[in-house]
Amino acid sequence: MSFRSYAIVGTGAIGGFYGSLLQKSGFDVHFLVHSDYNHVKKHGLDIRSIKGNFKLPVVNVYNSASLMPRCDVVIVSLKATNNNLLPEIIPNIIGEKGIVFLFQNGFGEERYIAKIPGVKQIIAGLCFICSTKTGPGKINHIDYGAVSLTQYSTDETPCGITPLMQDIADDFKHADISVNYNEDLLLARWKKLVWNIPFNGLSVIFNADTAELVKNQHSKELIIELMRDVVEGAASCGKNIPDSFINKMIIDTQNMKPYYPSMKLDFDAGRNMELQSIYANPLAEAARYGKKLSYIKALYEELMYLQGKADFSSAN
Amino acid sequence: MSFRSYAIVGTGAIGGFYGSLLQKSGFDVHFLVHSDYNHVKKHGLDIRSIKGNFKLPVVNVYNSASLMPRCDVVIVSLKATNNNLLPEIIPNIIGEKGIVFLFQNGFGEERYIAKIPGVKQIIAGLCFICSTKTGPGKINHIDYGAVSLTQYSTDETPCGITPLMQDIADDFKHADISVNYNEDLLLARWKKLVWNIPFNGLSVIFNADTAELVKNQHSKELIIELMRDVVEGAASCGKNIPDSFINKMIIDTQNMKPYYPSMKLDFDAGRNMELQSIYANPLAEAARYGKKLSYIKALYEELMYLQGKADFSSAN
Repeated sequence: MSFRSYAIVGTGAIGGFYGSLLQKSGFDVHFLVHSDYNHVKKHGLDIRSIKGNFKLPVVNVYNSASLMPRCDVVIVSLKATNNNLLPEIIPNIIGEKGIVFLFQNGFGEERYIAKIPGVKQIIAGLCFICSTKTGPGKINHIDYGAVSLTQYSTDETPCGITPLMQDIADDFKHADISVNYNEDLLLARWKKLVWNIPFNGLSVIFNADTAELVKNQHSKELIIELMRDVVEGAASCGKNIPDSFINKMIIDTQNMKPYYPSMKLDFDAGRNMELQSIYANPLAEAARYGKKLSYIKALYEELMYLQGKADFSSAN
Repeated sequence: MSFRSYAIVGTGAIGGFYGSLLQKSGFDVHFLVHSDYNHVKKHGLDIRSIKGNFKLPVVNVYNSASLMPRCDVVIVSLKATNNNLLPEIIPNIIGEKGIVFLFQNGFGEERYIAKIPGVKQIIAGLCFICSTKTGPGKINHIDYGAVSLTQYSTDETPCGITPLMQDIADDFKHADISVNYNEDLLLARWKKLVWNIPFNGLSVIFNADTAELVKNQHSKELIIELMRDVVEGAASCGKNIPDSFINKMIIDTQNMKPYYPSMKLDFDAGRNMELQSIYANPLAEAARYGKKLSYIKALYEELMYLQGKADFSSAN
């Protein structure tokens, strides 16, 4: 094992969880922490997980990227709404191989990150996980957790399974994180949106968890129409998702524990929602290929209306 | 003048207002009243209107159709959600010419009413009016008020301007009600839906009045998409509404006083919403012609979800 060093930019439900697993298994991990800095510096991180609870009483914690060491891999696990901070952060901490690992679910953010000085390679990590930050330095992992790796290429053609993907996968497996590969990033992103587009937005609109959304016949009908829109949007961009995938996502959700998606938690906490990366970017991508996605557009406009009414500008 | 007699089935914001104008101008009017019966019997009707306030201290009021006289014209101004009551009511009170005047905004209810025994002719009255019932026997008319008349034919071909339409129009004009004619009922109904489909539903979803809905860029965008869906639905059924009509409806709404549409009032009061006649029937009509209306479908499913959650079954 090489024991690469990892920087965690955004120590929340995702970055905090996977970063803790990496540290626990022996990797050199450095956490950038915003609001919880003092707490984490004093108490470390406290992970409750279906795979076993554990604490890391001491972690390398920083409240400024300028104080961090350069790391072999920079894991970006901020909310996409804070990606505007990355040009300030990444150049300070990125290693000489320029590796960014992007733990975000939306669409199109790699195009932006690829332009940041020092970034040479981006691995996208898509995770299907039910995990929430329940307090400062406290994360609760209640279901799922595998990470799917794909490499980004600036011409956006599929990269296949690259050596870098395999190296990082080896590290993750060492940290007891299940991994799998996607050879085509755009396809992987569209597939992820099949779940994220309906459940994130509708949980806000209906003030409901995943179990309720997938049980009620009317929200389920909307979920399926939204999923069909995603599949059609993907197809318009040349990415084919089989119709059976919709049914799989419905059944997976029926089988998982009731869960409030991250967008619902953001909305309730007065944080901006990831509307750009989850809705606006895919809509724009499909529109480039001449495809209108009415159900997604309707949901997006509703969420934009709600976000505007809430006026979160001061909360972020 | 013939001075036809009028039965008002449903003495709310619409039936109470127009029925009062008819009585005030000398017609023989008989009001069927449900929850407000005792109040109206004792105090009559109290109309506040931009055209002048007035009171009718004594009205012919009934709490059962079986006690009412037969009338030349039966004005049906119930909520469409209560149309299931009409087969019990209409046969008791309909005159020998079998004339029903239907003051409802939805779609397809004439098909149902035409089958009720005694019904021989149906005139649809579409009104663009801002009027609300503010208390028992109290109606507040704040804007607009013209009534558009169209005759229904069982084969649903346009009837043109019929003698019956002209007779009723004469009565209405005598009562100082502005009238105009539509020769094609289905076209008139679709045109009415251009306004009703967006503003009724979105006022519920966004908890907002007409002024706010048409001002916010995101709700306005949704309104326009919903209006385009209605225009496309109409076109699929062979009814052509010019695109300019959408712009006219937007400008009319910007110019009218801020207003909560009746569906919003129904929802807030715990009454069932007119989701069948305003949404489900037009969706089904377009579907008969192979047309999917995604924005309308999305809004309909959201409203059905909300109505189901509210569980209004006992309130009606």
